Amino acid sequence: MENTQTKDIILQLIEDKKYKAVREMLEDYNTVDLAEILMELDDKDLAIVFRMIDKEVASEVFSYMDDDQRQYLINVFTDREITEILENMYTDDAVDFLDDMPANVVTKLLSKVNKDTRADINRLLQYPEDSAGSIMTVEYVELQYNMDISEALDAIRRQGLGSETVYTCYVVERKELKGIVTAKELMTNEPDVLIKDIMLDNFVYIRTTDDKEDAAKLFHKYGLIAIPVIDTGNRMVGIVTFDDAIDVLQEETTEDIHKMAAIEASDDTYLKMGVFEHVRHRIIWLIVLMLIAGVTGFIIKSNEKLVSLLPALFVFLPTLMDTGGNAGSQSATLIIRGLSVDELDFSDFLSVLWKEIRVGFIIGIILAILEYIIVYFVSGFSIPIGIAVSVSLLLTVIVSKLIGCSLPMLASKVKLDPAIMASPVITTIVDICSIAIYFAITVKLVQ
Amino acid sequence: MENTQTKDIILQLIEDKKYKAVREMLEDYNTVDLAEILMELDDKDLAIVFRMIDKEVASEVFSYMDDDQRQYLINVFTDREITEILENMYTDDAVDFLDDMPANVVTKLLSKVNKDTRADINRLLQYPEDSAGSIMTVEYVELQYNMDISEALDAIRRQGLGSETVYTCYVVERKELKGIVTAKELMTNEPDVLIKDIMLDNFVYIRTTDDKEDAAKLFHKYGLIAIPVIDTGNRMVGIVTFDDAIDVLQEETTEDIHKMAAIEASDDTYLKMGVFEHVRHRIIWLIVLMLIAGVTGFIIKSNEKLVSLLPALFVFLPTLMDTGGNAGSQSATLIIRGLSVDELDFSDFLSVLWKEIRVGFIIGIILAILEYIIVYFVSGFSIPIGIAVSVSLLLTVIVSKLIGCSLPMLASKVKLDPAIMASPVITTIVDICSIAIYFAITVKLVQ
Repeated sequence: MENTQTKDIILQLIEDKKYKAVREMLEDYNTVDLAEILMELDDKDLAIVFRMIDKEVASEVFSYMDDDQRQYLINVFTDREITEILENMYTDDAVDFLDDMPANVVTKLLSKVNKDTRADINRLLQYPEDSAGSIMTVEYVELQYNMDISEALDAIRRQGLGSETVYTCYVVERKELKGIVTAKELMTNEPDVLIKDIMLDNFVYIRTTDDKEDAAKLFHKYGLIAIPVIDTGNRMVGIVTFDDAIDVLQEETTEDIHKMAAIEASDDTYLKMGVFEHVRHRIIWLIVLMLIAGVTGFIIKSNEKLVSLLPALFVFLPTLMDTGGNAGSQSATLIIRGLSVDELDFSDFLSVLWKEIRVGFIIGIILAILEYIIVYFVSGFSIPIGIAVSVSLLLTVIVSKLIGCSLPMLASKVKLDPAIMASPVITTIVDICSIAIYFAITVKLVQ
Repeated sequence: MENTQTKDIILQLIEDKKYKAVREMLEDYNTVDLAEILMELDDKDLAIVFRMIDKEVASEVFSYMDDDQRQYLINVFTDREITEILENMYTDDAVDFLDDMPANVVTKLLSKVNKDTRADINRLLQYPEDSAGSIMTVEYVELQYNMDISEALDAIRRQGLGSETVYTCYVVERKELKGIVTAKELMTNEPDVLIKDIMLDNFVYIRTTDDKEDAAKLFHKYGLIAIPVIDTGNRMVGIVTFDDAIDVLQEETTEDIHKMAAIEASDDTYLKMGVFEHVRHRIIWLIVLMLIAGVTGFIIKSNEKLVSLLPALFVFLPTLMDTGGNAGSQSATLIIRGLSVDELDFSDFLSVLWKEIRVGFIIGIILAILEYIIVYFVSGFSIPIGIAVSVSLLLTVIVSKLIGCSLPMLASKVKLDPAIMASPVITTIVDICSIAIYFAITVKLVQ
């Protein structure tokens, strides 16, 4: 059933004061869908319905809701409700939520939770935004080296309910991670087998200071459900789970795609961002690129004589610029994506360059012939003009491909984000080149 | 230790005939890293080292290797080796591998495996490439409704080793999926609790015919490890696991990003694709766009009088075109990404349009003022020209933003992939508009 329909039914039931029916209805939904249903409600109904959600899942539902609604709920909640919510949330979700709240609200909220929770949250809040530490949770199952499986399963029954995952358990000795045991091992071996005999001691781990994107890529590479996080003192301090990793990968991809269109990254969605925020995220690059594009003006100005003698030349300049820009953007995009999914690195520079030269040459020839037909036969210009335009096109395409593949590669070499060397920058630079090439060739026509 | 170093050490050991040492060394690596190490080897060493890998993990390592190497190994393997590999691979990995092999090889290989495996593989091979069925596996744990937990754990010990995941078990009655039980429930409840009391009966599932990208998105939305797959006859036929889902999401994103740069999708990586393949994937769009861009030529041609009277005007045309293209690409990219991560849909069209009008107006004003300064003060052109250029720029930016946000939205409405309405298409269309606007305004100067 569509969540919007559900919403209407719920609202109707509330109007009719059939609260029991609402409760029963809500029980049929999982936490993610519940959060979606709540999103459909306006503030006045929100609190009513939220309070009807089973206490057991309320915190999880809360962690899936959007900030405006959470901010609103926090304001209408009693201290006891706030405490309950926060203490039952996984630390990483709580941190996620508090990260987006104003500092004074955070202090107020934290004052309401117990000492341990507060300590955990405060520690996680201190990790830099892009670090693995900032997305980890501290709820995981700790096992002892010398337990047997049945003891381990008891330990899981004790700690398990509060842990974000019980599918990878961690064998810890004096805070140091000795090995990991998967639930699969625990469930497929006999009860009397010892942990130390089934634990894996060469495991993948990350450090709190690692970049969260690199951490996320490990999940993809090794198909892991959770990765343990080690602090600078080699102590195990938490785990990162795959669902957070998928979030990170998606955010980072969105950031890349936006950068590739000369838009500055933002955490908010398109609709949530105000007009001025949108302006702020787009204007700088537009100005920079407009100023660079200005160079074309100087080139043209210094060829004014040519212009007045052969105005016809201008008929084909825009097509030349567009085609060059598109050809360059293709190469840039292929390289940028290749770099970001680790299919390419700087060591491939020469083979990429050699491939683009050949691709550019073949594509250039095809387009040049086509353009000659258009200039000479279709538009009826003179043979020399046809040749000038076609040759310029061929050279422009080759140059564009080379610039398009080189700039992202070089950016990665100097630890710049290759994504900024995408379509807009490439197009602008290529346009300057194409105009320069065009004049260099056409000027011969009037001599 | 870097995998390249490992490779050198291994090669050295092989040369010294220290095979035992190699075996011990290989035991320290997980399957993913082993596959990476093998990738470093050339064919003659490949077979030697692969045969030294523990039989238990060989099949899994094989499923992580790239096609060329697998093709090579298949050719040198004995029938017994082939059978072993294929029968120990998870069905989805086997299908993945066979999908990329020539038909005659597939038949040859399948003739070597037992009847059941062959039947499973053949069934999965028949699902269309983009369907959920094509990425599912048939190895999962089946439980009975009336088992208690200890019986369930026994069942897992029996079926578990061969299953791709034991963390979600499926309660099946006469082939029909009644509910799911998570390993967490199994491990955190007492042994005598009955399955029917802890099983979840409102679970997320997909159909074999669903689009695999939609399926992958469910993992992200609900943070699931595995999703059951139901066939058209409502029978449970397999599961999709989150690691395959992450692969799908990444492939689809790469496809989108390439489409956004007017490149046709390809399964191969940049380096694996030959020059002509690259040409084939890029040329069509370049031709189409070049022909569309040709329209600019007609506009200019029909204004030749203007050109010869005021050649100076051309000095600013490229800047105008570039800025318009960039402004439009920004909008297009924001909308396309918003649509693909389901933050936007067609119902938002009007609010998007209204937002882009305002953003475009503000950005346009800022850029226009800046450009006027450049034209009049810096370049020393006349006031009328300065005004003409600035006004054209303002209009161009607004129009670009509107085109940039509208085309992807409309594409999604008519079930076209919005990704094709990205930078290249937008830039080309916007250039036509900007030139038309520019002439419409500047023509006034010469009257």
